[in-house]
Amino acid sequence: MAKTPKNAADPTRLSDLLRLPQGPVDLGRYDPRATPGFVGGKKQAPAATAALAPRLDDLQERLFAAGRAGTGVDGPPVPSVLVVLQGMDTSGKGGVIRHAIGLVDPQGVQISAFKAPTRAEKRHDFLWRIRRRTPAPGTIGIFDRSHYEDVLIVRVHELVPESEWSARYEQINAFEAELAAAGTTVLKCYLHISADEQRQRLLARLDDPSKYWKYNPGDVDERALWPSYLRAYEDALEQCNTTGAPWHLVPADRKWYRNWAVAALLLEHLEALHLQWPPADFDVETERSRLL
Amino acid sequence: MAKTPKNAADPTRLSDLLRLPQGPVDLGRYDPRATPGFVGGKKQAPAATAALAPRLDDLQERLFAAGRAGTGVDGPPVPSVLVVLQGMDTSGKGGVIRHAIGLVDPQGVQISAFKAPTRAEKRHDFLWRIRRRTPAPGTIGIFDRSHYEDVLIVRVHELVPESEWSARYEQINAFEAELAAAGTTVLKCYLHISADEQRQRLLARLDDPSKYWKYNPGDVDERALWPSYLRAYEDALEQCNTTGAPWHLVPADRKWYRNWAVAALLLEHLEALHLQWPPADFDVETERSRLL
Repeated sequence: MAKTPKNAADPTRLSDLLRLPQGPVDLGRYDPRATPGFVGGKKQAPAATAALAPRLDDLQERLFAAGRAGTGVDGPPVPSVLVVLQGMDTSGKGGVIRHAIGLVDPQGVQISAFKAPTRAEKRHDFLWRIRRRTPAPGTIGIFDRSHYEDVLIVRVHELVPESEWSARYEQINAFEAELAAAGTTVLKCYLHISADEQRQRLLARLDDPSKYWKYNPGDVDERALWPSYLRAYEDALEQCNTTGAPWHLVPADRKWYRNWAVAALLLEHLEALHLQWPPADFDVETERSRLL
Repeated sequence: MAKTPKNAADPTRLSDLLRLPQGPVDLGRYDPRATPGFVGGKKQAPAATAALAPRLDDLQERLFAAGRAGTGVDGPPVPSVLVVLQGMDTSGKGGVIRHAIGLVDPQGVQISAFKAPTRAEKRHDFLWRIRRRTPAPGTIGIFDRSHYEDVLIVRVHELVPESEWSARYEQINAFEAELAAAGTTVLKCYLHISADEQRQRLLARLDDPSKYWKYNPGDVDERALWPSYLRAYEDALEQCNTTGAPWHLVPADRKWYRNWAVAALLLEHLEALHLQWPPADFDVETERSRLL
């Protein structure tokens, strides 16, 4: 098991450990079984993840309160957070939502799973359906797949000409910069699994009748395109790794690490907002006497 | 503290204990501090509620799987569940969502909070915005307030003429019957608190700066209309207490009981669906050899 010498007093942020350096990306350099920043192993993980819940809970409520309170016309924008989850089939986007995002009050979270676009969605620009699901002020949006599919599956299957998908990296960067300017923290996580681990997970679905519903024979066809997907991911991770909306590479062969890591990344990004409780917009003593 | 002689072997369902009898409703007859069906007290409640999570999790996933699998053209409709939460201000609709609904995988849950209708919504029939948020097959919808506001606040404040709101009970019954026929289990919970408890909860918000954002001076004005709201609730609970979509009265002065009770009601309603895992729609051995 990969171990890091980090101890509890180490001020290193997980975000710093997992943020992809800018420049060309070679995914072969990253061990999908690594566990950067986690002290201990599988046995410690559930408790470590659960231990994040109270702070996540507090910060999510502050965020939600900020959304309710709003700000003046000239004030700063009300913050929101958008978590973008990408990764090969079985990399665990759903597992992350269940186990990490599930720690947060569901009232403040909006989850969007982007499947193949509908006929109506296809009549619009690729960002149209995405923009409709960006988080409202004070809320946390979760994208299970995202606009990145439009430079991943679309590229691998040549669903649009290269001239079209190759222009999208710039469009995505502009879109994400626009979100950031409007107060949205964009947390992008690439869940990094190995082809071997994917095979094991697909086989496990065939071994358990309660998992048949998750199995799609088409996933095996996609699996044959693994090298093409890897190249498409490397390009997307390189070309859309902006300072305002950087990519984080989350090693995902170990489910327990993956869930802890995304929860910890979310926590760090919420902490960075330095959220305060909104002040009263009424007179406390007047209200107290009205009630008594 | 109210205790019931129920023990673990008692086959009584909480749904039976909390379901409102049909006929005229006198809310004064129900103790908001009662804890029907719960063995023990506040100390036991968090563990008892958490203990429901694994079964809720399993059943929610079966429901979700059924939604993915769908059914044939002539088959039965794919099930879904709609939880309707109603109650006076501070009765704890948000708390229930956080602590009871929060036990369930958020991917299978859609929460809708109905505020005062927007100008666009007002141009439509009162059920228009409600229908847009009914749960998709295989999912659980949560209504934090609902179409019942159209016979509650609307009636108390005379926002439409009596001839209009008085016709809505029938329209609501027809709508809920339509949902049931389409495969939606409608679980309606009235969170029953006392006026004293409401005062305590509003005062608590004034005592804690981290709760100021939840305090709305307008709530005190509404509080003065308590008897009118009570009458409006009694009528709604009586007139819309159908066999297909009955009301449940959840005593809500004790938050720990309220949260446990709604989680337990949801669990019982999921159990009643007798959900099976969908069979494989592919040949398991063929797929295994394709992977190996």
